[in-house]
Amino acid sequence: MPADLNRRILLARHPQGMPCEADFALDTTAVPVPGEGQILIRAHYLSCDPLQRIRMAESATYGATIPLGTVVWGRQVGVVVASRHAGFRAGDIVEGMLGWQDFSLSDGGGRRAEYAPGITRVDPTVAPITTSLGVLGMPGVTAYFALTEIGRPRQGETVVVSGAAGTVGSLAGQIAKLMGCRVIGIAGGAAKVAHVTGRLGFDAAIDYRATSDIAAALRALAPEGVDVYFDNVGGPIRDAVLRVLRRGARIALVGRISRMHDAAPTCPDPQVPLMHARALMQGFIVYDYEHRAEEARSAVAAWIRDGRIRYDETIVDGFENTPRAFIDMLGGGNLGKMLVRV
Amino acid sequence: MPADLNRRILLARHPQGMPCEADFALDTTAVPVPGEGQILIRAHYLSCDPLQRIRMAESATYGATIPLGTVVWGRQVGVVVASRHAGFRAGDIVEGMLGWQDFSLSDGGGRRAEYAPGITRVDPTVAPITTSLGVLGMPGVTAYFALTEIGRPRQGETVVVSGAAGTVGSLAGQIAKLMGCRVIGIAGGAAKVAHVTGRLGFDAAIDYRATSDIAAALRALAPEGVDVYFDNVGGPIRDAVLRVLRRGARIALVGRISRMHDAAPTCPDPQVPLMHARALMQGFIVYDYEHRAEEARSAVAAWIRDGRIRYDETIVDGFENTPRAFIDMLGGGNLGKMLVRV
Repeated sequence: MPADLNRRILLARHPQGMPCEADFALDTTAVPVPGEGQILIRAHYLSCDPLQRIRMAESATYGATIPLGTVVWGRQVGVVVASRHAGFRAGDIVEGMLGWQDFSLSDGGGRRAEYAPGITRVDPTVAPITTSLGVLGMPGVTAYFALTEIGRPRQGETVVVSGAAGTVGSLAGQIAKLMGCRVIGIAGGAAKVAHVTGRLGFDAAIDYRATSDIAAALRALAPEGVDVYFDNVGGPIRDAVLRVLRRGARIALVGRISRMHDAAPTCPDPQVPLMHARALMQGFIVYDYEHRAEEARSAVAAWIRDGRIRYDETIVDGFENTPRAFIDMLGGGNLGKMLVRV
Repeated sequence: MPADLNRRILLARHPQGMPCEADFALDTTAVPVPGEGQILIRAHYLSCDPLQRIRMAESATYGATIPLGTVVWGRQVGVVVASRHAGFRAGDIVEGMLGWQDFSLSDGGGRRAEYAPGITRVDPTVAPITTSLGVLGMPGVTAYFALTEIGRPRQGETVVVSGAAGTVGSLAGQIAKLMGCRVIGIAGGAAKVAHVTGRLGFDAAIDYRATSDIAAALRALAPEGVDVYFDNVGGPIRDAVLRVLRRGARIALVGRISRMHDAAPTCPDPQVPLMHARALMQGFIVYDYEHRAEEARSAVAAWIRDGRIRYDETIVDGFENTPRAFIDMLGGGNLGKMLVRV
């Protein structure tokens, strides 16, 4: 990597449907110079997250959108290479929404907006620094609080997790197992299904790509119904789970890949299944729990240390491959956290 | 009314869409004779409730359905005319799911299933006995618990109630006012809107029949968004309210008239608005709160005594007019509780 140039991936146009590489542009600029109170960070790993797709739309369903011609908003973990901030010094590892670029500036503060360059210090002795973008980062905080605050699983209950092979889903399912639940994963493809029931220890898993009737498959696996649905994908899979709820079920709406490209998606009206089961469906946004992130991080870190939680990473090499990695991730080509090594 | 004949309204066929009078048949049978432990009840008022429409369908979305050729399941308040039960004597007033008929038998027990002839004793000194089918009956218990357990309104919040001129809605809105909320009703027609903001004391009301964009109308009335939505109707009105939720909103799914005749209704996917607002949407069925009904009844009765809660009744005379009254109620032709005086 040339030390005196800053490579950046810009949003060239708003993707229509599934993004393609031409929606992005690579440019290079001078490395920025930290002002008083600022630090300069060099990226080590860039994060590919489904939420970024929403930010790329012409108008976001919530929150702001990435202006055309500017750096794609994205999280990264990197190293401080220069500091004019009393709280940081060269060599410190930090994580934050610093964008898809080699070099970025931060004033060291926490997040002010989801696209603002606030940073969090990463302790590389706890776990590999890549986990700061995964199980010990925002995805981990998401899994922990969406499960415990909305799902509230009780011992012996049946918990269904979609996106089960992804960072958030695989962690949520494993935590539910630790809480004494029976856990059914939903994932795409035989390899992911085998991974979820094998390495990750889920009780069962459904390959949604090979299953024409997800509701029937769930009913066969959970004849008494689903108590908790941790929804990472939305769309027809959620519609199917709604048909097999047990009375008093809780549904945490955490993510969506399905119907994400659709400006005005429709679905079967959930009113009757929600009324029938007296079920609760609630939206979750991780930023509401940022002030409690340390609670999730320390719990997950302890489980990782004890070998009770496993995590996976799909690491793509090369800065310029970031758009391709992102597109692959949206298409389900990753196992666990999708990262780009710069 | 001939004392020696029992008039009954039977379900002649499953309604398609909005019921019509030909879906029902009137017959007469002998007055049943109470066996040991049973009481014989003569109906004074029959209740017309939206839930009955669901029970008339060929297959119900939840619960059982009324078999063709049998008495329509429906609540009534009546008088004990003969008793072979130690706990009741002639002259006692009782309320229960005794069906659309003049005479019925009960073993005096509480409800075992929503169509089983369990009964509740009514104290005619508390309020007119018709209230046992309305504000002091299941509709009252519904309004009270769906609001306080799911809606959980806090002082100063904005509460929206659809079906605002109906039994449940008018009570829910008035309770929300007593809890210090700003209450916006949604009702059909200028007369109901005037009634809701006048006699019932809601802060504002929207005539959904005269409003092309409910979401815009709500946004104008509640620029900061809706904290609680008490949903009595479902359908496009709920879809509209979902677009103007304030962060942390709670939606109680209590009733549906809209899309009730549709076997597989669809709607805009609620995922994005629920996630955006971190909102909660939960189904409510009053039977879950039957064991706490007295809590609601005594609270509402006290408010009625103090003049802090008002209620309305639309009373149709004549047993044979029951199907017509029921159809009128589904079409919104009632103000408050729709009853038939036998």
